[in-house]
Amino acid sequence: VALAFERLQAVGLVEARPGSGHFIAAHAPTLAPASVELGPAPSEDAALGFVRSLDDASITLPVGCGFLPPSWFAEAIPLSILSRVRSGGALSLPAPRQGDPILRELLVERLRARGVPAACRHILVTKGASQAFDLIARTLLSPGDTVLVDDPGYFVLFTRLKAAGVRLLPVPKCADGSALDVLEDLARTQRPRMFFTQTLLHNPTGISASPANCHGILQFAEKYDFLVAEDHSHSDLASPHLISMAQIDELRRVLYIGSYTKVLSPGTRIGFIAAADACITALLEAKILAVLSGSALEEAVLREVLSSGKYRKYLERLRDRLARYRALATTALKRTGLDVVGEGGLFLWCRLPDGMDALRLSVDARRVRILLANGSMFSCRGSGNEYLRFNAAYASDPLLIEFLSERLRRDRIPKIDV
Amino acid sequence: VALAFERLQAVGLVEARPGSGHFIAAHAPTLAPASVELGPAPSEDAALGFVRSLDDASITLPVGCGFLPPSWFAEAIPLSILSRVRSGGALSLPAPRQGDPILRELLVERLRARGVPAACRHILVTKGASQAFDLIARTLLSPGDTVLVDDPGYFVLFTRLKAAGVRLLPVPKCADGSALDVLEDLARTQRPRMFFTQTLLHNPTGISASPANCHGILQFAEKYDFLVAEDHSHSDLASPHLISMAQIDELRRVLYIGSYTKVLSPGTRIGFIAAADACITALLEAKILAVLSGSALEEAVLREVLSSGKYRKYLERLRDRLARYRALATTALKRTGLDVVGEGGLFLWCRLPDGMDALRLSVDARRVRILLANGSMFSCRGSGNEYLRFNAAYASDPLLIEFLSERLRRDRIPKIDV
Repeated sequence: VALAFERLQAVGLVEARPGSGHFIAAHAPTLAPASVELGPAPSEDAALGFVRSLDDASITLPVGCGFLPPSWFAEAIPLSILSRVRSGGALSLPAPRQGDPILRELLVERLRARGVPAACRHILVTKGASQAFDLIARTLLSPGDTVLVDDPGYFVLFTRLKAAGVRLLPVPKCADGSALDVLEDLARTQRPRMFFTQTLLHNPTGISASPANCHGILQFAEKYDFLVAEDHSHSDLASPHLISMAQIDELRRVLYIGSYTKVLSPGTRIGFIAAADACITALLEAKILAVLSGSALEEAVLREVLSSGKYRKYLERLRDRLARYRALATTALKRTGLDVVGEGGLFLWCRLPDGMDALRLSVDARRVRILLANGSMFSCRGSGNEYLRFNAAYASDPLLIEFLSERLRRDRIPKIDV
Repeated sequence: VALAFERLQAVGLVEARPGSGHFIAAHAPTLAPASVELGPAPSEDAALGFVRSLDDASITLPVGCGFLPPSWFAEAIPLSILSRVRSGGALSLPAPRQGDPILRELLVERLRARGVPAACRHILVTKGASQAFDLIARTLLSPGDTVLVDDPGYFVLFTRLKAAGVRLLPVPKCADGSALDVLEDLARTQRPRMFFTQTLLHNPTGISASPANCHGILQFAEKYDFLVAEDHSHSDLASPHLISMAQIDELRRVLYIGSYTKVLSPGTRIGFIAAADACITALLEAKILAVLSGSALEEAVLREVLSSGKYRKYLERLRDRLARYRALATTALKRTGLDVVGEGGLFLWCRLPDGMDALRLSVDARRVRILLANGSMFSCRGSGNEYLRFNAAYASDPLLIEFLSERLRRDRIPKIDV
């Protein structure tokens, strides 16, 4: 009974008067205030609109989203880890501003195993890759700078960079990585400050760049003096034997951005930047101004997972499962008439038959509670509306396959024999 | 044995070759690269320097810090809460961008119990109060704006606001709140865009503003058309019957900033902003660009704590304990010769005898592993070097009291009878 009263009191429905007892709270919950125009109007940015739609509870099949389904993570972090984290005191102390030093050591060991030379002081723990992008934009870019980005590429990054007042120039993605001819031309004529690129399991195409392509990008970075922000947020889903630019460059011009959100726990937000000392100092100051410090709780969870000795086997199982789902999805999507032009990691990148419009298809899909990711979102110049990105874990779902089969049968331009 | 090999493999010391066995890893951990000057030079900002010094492991008595000691939080979040959070799936799904809706409902109920009318849509969950300040600066302020701040006030906020390119003007703090005469004069002549202020248990003085003072500030806010960011990060340590500006204003011009970092768990980073719809939309977009989403894990922990019905009693015990420590510390500090000019919540705000220099005292204290917070940090114009802020939970420690007694005996200007 006492606890019941406590709960009622916690939500403000009763109040305790010491020495008298519990009473119905005097204040009736008041009405919310009328909205006053105090801030800027909501943006009509497609990326922000898409991200916000991920929270729409009416969606039953989020095949356009960038996270694996919750059920895949059911056993990723056992209760014993949370128990160790709690008894270790992680809830009671603020996280060190740069990140838990033992976690940073573990991240360093994993980077070294991938051939990236780094020390503990080169690591800054962040809230996922997203905060890494934000801090880089705050610290290393100035309004008016020219910045190169993958095309297609990660749309929230584009919106973030535009908010920093920089000029975005697209570098097309090819089968073996970035289009080096375009890259050199842009580097020579436009003098970019930085190139944001994803070399392994690129979002949205799934492509991994060849060592030669990585080498080519770095040669231009040196020749034309730009920095490279290399997004490794999906790299734990790639074979550990694939090469990266950070490995070749040894963190001289490359900032390595890692994340555990995709592979371990979408509900925790742990990523990091590995970079040269001078960058880390500035990024750390920006982090202090942005959030003061990270979450000791989340950092301790990742520390316990990485030091448990079970993470490598866990990743192997996750990669195997994802490969089976990609294979299933590839077969199913091809049968609908889509052309699967890229695949790897989380994603399948598909081309619609001529004459079909991905944006229109996405709008119609929402009516049957399917969230699609239309290709034009992934281009900083708004091209690519003949493409769709599919999350492999959801893309063989019969609900999706039926919807696509029917629409592609109906809407594709009939082939005319000549 | 298998697990031991897994751990060695996890840290990169051995490698597994399928079908052959485990081998010492071929790569010797390589050296870290030479530092290359890529970013801006480290700032010499006093606030950033102080925050970074909090991570200095050589400090044995962090009496200048703004957090309660870890031992105070040993039982704040029992393992049963973490177990419920895990089985509820919080690790497996990204947090909704605006924050967990059930958590937002609980925050709304608590706000209403304090007389602040708000609905779920008026709440944006943030990484502590720090991210709230950051998002407000990104969203509602522009370079060149004039912004009023408490003097003394929270130093990391000053540095954040300066980074936004705004002009800071100090509003002195008096015994009953803000100096209204100065405030009106500045509001009339300088046309500020916003006033950042802490009405309850003000950091660093511990002062709580009177209802009349709150009312006066709001009258000027309306007359001279500025917004008020009201920092409530310490309010759960105050009597629930104290008044706030958000309560009088009903979130028309006031943005209410709350936090659970100080009172529940320094190792998790949960705060929130309660504000009018138009503000929340813009702040949410800025949050998406900054971190994509919050931590579902941390949000679920707070949700379970607030809905458990035990939080109110927990707070009462915490307030009682802190009051006892404040009383002990007040007595002990007065005996050293310090003048305790303000006290409340976490802090005691003390004045040194004439002629003594708080910055010099802080530098000397570091040599004996005591971290002091000198008063000039808390002023945006660098005044206040005759003050020190003490954390009540640490300030009766004999190590500190001995250090202060000796220094005050030695350094104070002897009184000369005339």
